[in-house]
Amino acid sequence: MPGNTFGNIFKLTTFGESHGKAIGGIIDGCPSGIKIDKKKINYELNRRKPGQSEIVSPRQEKDKVEILSGIYNKKTTGTPIGFIVYNKDTKSKDYKNIKNIYRPSHADFTYYKKYKIRDYRGGGRSSARETVCRVIAGSIAKQILNNINIYAYVSSINDIKIKNTYDKIKVKNIEKNIIRCPDKNVAIEMINLIKKIQKKGDTIGGVITCVIKNTPIGLGEPIFNKLHAELGKAMLSINAVKGFEYGSGFKCTKMKGSEHNDVYIKDNKTKTNYSGGIQGGISNGMDIYFNVAFKPVSTIKKTQYSLNKKNEKVKFKIKGRHDPCVLPRAVPIVEAMTALVILDYFLLNKIYK
Amino acid sequence: MPGNTFGNIFKLTTFGESHGKAIGGIIDGCPSGIKIDKKKINYELNRRKPGQSEIVSPRQEKDKVEILSGIYNKKTTGTPIGFIVYNKDTKSKDYKNIKNIYRPSHADFTYYKKYKIRDYRGGGRSSARETVCRVIAGSIAKQILNNINIYAYVSSINDIKIKNTYDKIKVKNIEKNIIRCPDKNVAIEMINLIKKIQKKGDTIGGVITCVIKNTPIGLGEPIFNKLHAELGKAMLSINAVKGFEYGSGFKCTKMKGSEHNDVYIKDNKTKTNYSGGIQGGISNGMDIYFNVAFKPVSTIKKTQYSLNKKNEKVKFKIKGRHDPCVLPRAVPIVEAMTALVILDYFLLNKIYK
Amino acid sequence: MPGNTFGNIFKLTTFGESHGKAIGGIIDGCPSGIKIDKKKINYELNRRKPGQSEIVSPRQEKDKVEILSGIYNKKTTGTPIGFIVYNKDTKSKDYKNIKNIYRPSHADFTYYKKYKIRDYRGGGRSSARETVCRVIAGSIAKQILNNINIYAYVSSINDIKIKNTYDKIKVKNIEKNIIRCPDKNVAIEMINLIKKIQKKGDTIGGVITCVIKNTPIGLGEPIFNKLHAELGKAMLSINAVKGFEYGSGFKCTKMKGSEHNDVYIKDNKTKTNYSGGIQGGISNGMDIYFNVAFKPVSTIKKTQYSLNKKNEKVKFKIKGRHDPCVLPRAVPIVEAMTALVILDYFLLNKIYK
Amino acid sequence: MPGNTFGNIFKLTTFGESHGKAIGGIIDGCPSGIKIDKKKINYELNRRKPGQSEIVSPRQEKDKVEILSGIYNKKTTGTPIGFIVYNKDTKSKDYKNIKNIYRPSHADFTYYKKYKIRDYRGGGRSSARETVCRVIAGSIAKQILNNINIYAYVSSINDIKIKNTYDKIKVKNIEKNIIRCPDKNVAIEMINLIKKIQKKGDTIGGVITCVIKNTPIGLGEPIFNKLHAELGKAMLSINAVKGFEYGSGFKCTKMKGSEHNDVYIKDNKTKTNYSGGIQGGISNGMDIYFNVAFKPVSTIKKTQYSLNKKNEKVKFKIKGRHDPCVLPRAVPIVEAMTALVILDYFLLNKIYK
Repeated sequence: MPGNTFGNIFKLTTFGESHGKAIGGIIDGCPSGIKIDKKKINYELNRRKPGQSEIVSPRQEKDKVEILSGIYNKKTTGTPIGFIVYNKDTKSKDYKNIKNIYRPSHADFTYYKKYKIRDYRGGGRSSARETVCRVIAGSIAKQILNNINIYAYVSSINDIKIKNTYDKIKVKNIEKNIIRCPDKNVAIEMINLIKKIQKKGDTIGGVITCVIKNTPIGLGEPIFNKLHAELGKAMLSINAVKGFEYGSGFKCTKMKGSEHNDVYIKDNKTKTNYSGGIQGGISNGMDIYFNVAFKPVSTIKKTQYSLNKKNEKVKFKIKGRHDPCVLPRAVPIVEAMTALVILDYFLLNKIYK
Repeated sequence: MPGNTFGNIFKLTTFGESHGKAIGGIIDGCPSGIKIDKKKINYELNRRKPGQSEIVSPRQEKDKVEILSGIYNKKTTGTPIGFIVYNKDTKSKDYKNIKNIYRPSHADFTYYKKYKIRDYRGGGRSSARETVCRVIAGSIAKQILNNINIYAYVSSINDIKIKNTYDKIKVKNIEKNIIRCPDKNVAIEMINLIKKIQKKGDTIGGVITCVIKNTPIGLGEPIFNKLHAELGKAMLSINAVKGFEYGSGFKCTKMKGSEHNDVYIKDNKTKTNYSGGIQGGISNGMDIYFNVAFKPVSTIKKTQYSLNKKNEKVKFKIKGRHDPCVLPRAVPIVEAMTALVILDYFLLNKIYK
Repeated sequence: MPGNTFGNIFKLTTFGESHGKAIGGIIDGCPSGIKIDKKKINYELNRRKPGQSEIVSPRQEKDKVEILSGIYNKKTTGTPIGFIVYNKDTKSKDYKNIKNIYRPSHADFTYYKKYKIRDYRGGGRSSARETVCRVIAGSIAKQILNNINIYAYVSSINDIKIKNTYDKIKVKNIEKNIIRCPDKNVAIEMINLIKKIQKKGDTIGGVITCVIKNTPIGLGEPIFNKLHAELGKAMLSINAVKGFEYGSGFKCTKMKGSEHNDVYIKDNKTKTNYSGGIQGGISNGMDIYFNVAFKPVSTIKKTQYSLNKKNEKVKFKIKGRHDPCVLPRAVPIVEAMTALVILDYFLLNKIYK
Repeated sequence: MPGNTFGNIFKLTTFGESHGKAIGGIIDGCPSGIKIDKKKINYELNRRKPGQSEIVSPRQEKDKVEILSGIYNKKTTGTPIGFIVYNKDTKSKDYKNIKNIYRPSHADFTYYKKYKIRDYRGGGRSSARETVCRVIAGSIAKQILNNINIYAYVSSINDIKIKNTYDKIKVKNIEKNIIRCPDKNVAIEMINLIKKIQKKGDTIGGVITCVIKNTPIGLGEPIFNKLHAELGKAMLSINAVKGFEYGSGFKCTKMKGSEHNDVYIKDNKTKTNYSGGIQGGISNGMDIYFNVAFKPVSTIKKTQYSLNKKNEKVKFKIKGRHDPCVLPRAVPIVEAMTALVILDYFLLNKIYK
C-alpha cells in the first residue's frame, strides 16, 4: 500500500534520498539458481549516470552497486537480494538558497504538504536519483529474461522526430550516439538542439519508444491488471513522464475499425500490429511497443518566481548541475521498468501451467 | 495478484461473463455510516447502458443492481458490499458462427492461449459487459467523495475535436446530447460522423477528457504509486483504451522548461496548470485533468478474414448488435474508474493525519 | 488490506450478513480447465449445516450454492468464480430483544465501536454464517488438490480426549458419528456430554485436529509467510478459535532438543515427526498436522447480565436456535481453510519451477 | 507474495543471510514527523544479542544499526527507512563439516529442495539472525505507539512455570534477571535448569507470554484479518515457534460457556477477560495477552545421525557457539513482532475515522 514497492512476484522495494547516506533496495521473489553478472548491472548504471556526455548533468556519480545478500557464488539463491549504493558527490549546499521555496513544477510543495516535513537537499526522495535502484533491479530482471529482448530509444526531442517506425530502426545504432537515437542524422539534430537549449539555461522534453521482442503468449492478468495497464503504470511512475500510449496509441482515434483490426494470418501472426502485441490485456506473441512522453526538466537555470513556505512571493535562481534534457539518461530507466513488469508477469503466468 | 481486484483500501473485486447467469462484485473497505442512494447508481448505469440512443448498440440490457450486503437502512455498515446484476438479453446464438474463430483485435486468441478454454459467447470475461460493475462501484465511490467533483466528456471523435480546453467547457452541457460532448455544434458533427460510419458497418474511435475538481492536497503514494500512475493504470484497464496522458501530456514534449513550469502564485495556486494538478505524484490542489484514447471498436459488420483454432484461414461476418463508437457509453466508465482511484487514495492518505 | 479477502494467488473474497439477503463470494486466481463437481460442494455444505443432528443448532438452512461465473461446461475457465447462497430461514425477530445489548463474548460491542453502526440481526457479519463461503471455496480447492489429502476430526471435547495420535486414527470412521471423532467409544462419551450440557442451556468447547497427507516438498514462503504461520492465521480467523499448535505444539516446551530433533532416515523421511511436516516454514513431505482450540459458544440460553448501548446494566436471555458445541460443524471449516492455504502455496511454489 | 515483507501499511521488508555481508531492511509506510531515538533501538538489540549472559550463545555480535534514509534531523520524513547491520563475527568455517548434511529439524533439507541451492554457512536465510531486523523495526514501531504498552516475559521453561497470571506479575522485574522471568525465584530455577542442560550439550524450550496494555478499541479487520489471527501469524513466523494461544487459549476447551463469557460491567470493561482483549477479531480495550511456545533449539552439541545430499547416512557433531535455550533472547523479538502488528492495525483503523 505505501508506494515504495513495485511488482507482485518479482518485487522491488527501494529506499533513499538524493542527498542521504545511501540509496538501495530489496528484490524479493527472485527465482533461484540464476547467474547474475555484476558487470551487466554496472553497464546499465553507466548508461544512466550523469556526467556521461556533454548533453547531460556534469555531476559525477560513480555509482557502484554493492550486493549484500541473495546471491552466492554468483547465483541467485531464492532469498531476497539486498543492494546498496552509497551517495558520494552530494553538494547539499547547492540547495541552501531554495530551502524554503517551492520550486515550480517540482514536488517541493506537495511533499511538504503531505508529510509536513521537508528534506530540501536535492529533492530528497522525489529526486530522480532513486531511479538508480530501478536500473539495478531492471538489469537483474533482464538477465533472467534473457530470451526476451527489451530496448528503448529516443524517438523525438521537441519537434525533431525519427521517421522510421519501431520495426524499421537499427537496434545496434541506439548506443552509437549520446542521445540514444538509432537514426544518426536525426541524432545529430537532436544533440544540436539540446546544446542550444542548454546554453540558454533552459530545458526540453521528448518521447522514448520501447520495444519488447519474443514475449511469450499469455502474459497479462485481466481485467484490472492488463499487461499494458501495468506497463503504463510502470512508465508513469518514472519522474517527468506525462503520457503513455501503446500500439497505435492516440493515433488509433483517427482510424476506422476496418483499418485498425489486426487480421490473423498463418502461424498465429497478425498482418498489422496496431494492437501492439497485446489483446484483451494479454500478450499475443507479436512485438510489444509503446511511447513514453517526458516533460522538459523543471530545473532551469533562469531566474524564476514562486512562493516560499510563508506564502511570500520570491525571486530565485537554481544553482547546481542539472540536465537540459532527461531523455538520453531515461532510456535505461524505461528499459528497466519494462523488464520488471515483463518478468513479474512471466512468473505470474507460470501459475497457469 | 490475480487481476480481478482494483484498489488497495476501497477494493473492488468483480466476476462475470457477458453471457453467463450474472455479473457482480464485492466492495471491501468501504467506510461505514455513509448514505447510499440506489437511484444514483441506476442513473450511472443508464448512462452506460446500450440502447440509450441511435448511435450505440441497440441491445436492451435493463441492468438493475441488487445489493446483497453491507448496506443496512440505506447506510454502509463497514462490511463488504456484495452486489449482483443478472444477465438478461443474452443472445448466445449470435456467436455460434464465430465459435472457433479468432476475431481480429479481440481477445479470443489470447484468452484461449492463456487459459486453454474458450467461453465464446460474446467475448466472455473480456467483454466490456464487466464495466457494469465498475460503474456501480464508481457510483458508490462518487457518493462518498461528494465534495470532489469528477466529470468526463468526449473531446474528440476521429478528426472532430472540441476547441475549448478543459477549464473553459460548460459542464452542464455534457449530458445534453447523446455523444456527451459539451460543445453543442461539435457534438452534432460527431454524431453525424458516427451515423455515417455506422451505416457502412464500420467503427470509429476518439478521446475522452476527464476532470477532477476540489481534490485535497496530498493524494498519491510515491514513488511507484504516484497518483497519475494509478489513474493511468485505471484508464488503461478499460476495454479499448490505447493511451493516457495527464496535464500537458504528449504536448509537453514540444515545450521548453521555462514555458512549462507552473509558477506558484498566491494561496498556493499556480499560474498555469501544465502539471495537471499532480507534482511528484501527489495532488497539489489544482484541477486534475487527463485524456484517454479509445480505439475504434473491433467488432465491425464487414466481411473479415482470420484464423480459426485449427490454424485455417477463414472468412466470416459478425452478427449481433454492436456499438459503432464506444465513446458515449465510456464516459461514465472513465468517471467510475477515476472515482475508485481518488477515493482509494483519499482513504490511504488518512493514515498520514 | 480490508479483511474480507483470503489468499494470494487462489484468492477468496466474501460478503454477507447472517440475516441479509444472501452471502457469497468470488474466487480469483483459480487455474483453468479443472473439473468441478457441484455435488462435492454440497456434500461439504451438508457437513457444515445446522440441523444435521441432535447436538447442533436445529436451525434449517438448506444452503445450496449457485455458481454464477468462471465455470463453463463444468470446467473452470480461469476467470473469477462468483457464487451466491441466498439466506432463507432468518428469524430476525429472535434478535429484537437484544438489539441494544452487548452480548458477553460476542462481537456486538467491538463492531459497534469500530463501525458506529450495528446490524443486530444474528450477529450480522460476525456470525459464523459467513463460514458457508469458506466451505464452498474450500471444496473447490480440495477438488483441485486431489492428490493431497486433507482431513480433520474432533480430538477432544472438554476433558474427553481421543487417545490415539493423528497417525493411528481410522480416517474412514470420522464421518461415522455425529461428533466426527474417529474413535467410536470416545465419540459416544463426547455426544453424551454435549447433550447433558445442552439440556442445561450451556455450551462447551474442544479441539479439532487436522492432518494433511502427501503435501509436496517445498510449500511455504519464508521468512514471514512460513507455511505454518499461514495455516495458523487461517485457523485463528475462524469464529471461536483461541489457539493453534502444529507438530509437537505446546508439548515441545517440555522436551529436550535431543528428543525433539527429527532424524533424517532413508528416502528423505524422518524417524519422528515432531516438526509436523514443516521445517523453516517449508513443507518437508512428511505429514502436516495441527490442533485448533475452539471455545465454548458464547450464545448460552441462561439468564445473563451485560451493558446496553446507554451503558446501563441489563439482564437478558437469548432466544433462537443455537449450537451447544461448535466442534462437529467446524470440522469441514477447518478442512476448507486448510485447503485454501495449501492450494495457494502450491500455486505460489510453481513460480520456482 | 514472496515472503520477506510483513505488514500492510507499516510494512517491513528484510534481507540478509547469517554469514553474508550484511542484513537489513526497509520500513515503508512510516508516518512522518515522529522522533526516533537510536539509543532505544540499540537497547532492544542488546536485549536480543548473543553473548549477553552465561545462558545464551557466547557469540559476540556487536550489532549496531545504521539508518540510511527516511529519518532527517532525528525525525521520520514519511519516506522509506532503509537500515543495515553489517555482519561481523561470522565463523563460516564452523559450518564446513556440515556443508552437505541435512541437520535434523533445521531448514537445510527444505531450503535445498525448494531453491535447489544451499548457502550452508550458518543456516543462511533460515538462521534466527534475521530477527535483528525485526527487533529494529519493532523498536521504531514501539516509539510510534508510545501510549500502548507492550511487554513479554518467559512464563515457563520445560516444567518450571510462573504461578501468577499475566495481570499479577511485576513488569519492572522482567529485566532484572538473565532469563527475563518476572518471578525472581522461578527465574533462578529456570536459569539453573538451563545451565544443567547446557552442560550436557542439550537444549530446552518454553513459553513466552506477551501483554499489550492500552490498545484502543477497534483494531482488527474481520473476517480474515482478525487482530489475533495476525498476531498469531506474526508469532508463528518467528524461528522455533510451535504454538500460539490468546486469552483463555487451549484452556478454553475445558470451560463451559457460562463460565467463559466475559460479562460487560460499567465503563465498557468486562468482569473477566477470557476473550484476551479481542472479540470478533477486534480489540475491545481490555488487556490483550497471549502465549507463544518455543521448541528446544535444534542445534545440539551431541553426536547426531542424518542424511547427506547423496542420501547417505552420516554421523556428525555440530561445532560453533549456540544457545541452549532461545527464550531469553526471544523476548524482545516477540515484543517487536507484536509492535509491528499493533502499529499496522492502528494505522489501518485510521481509515474508519
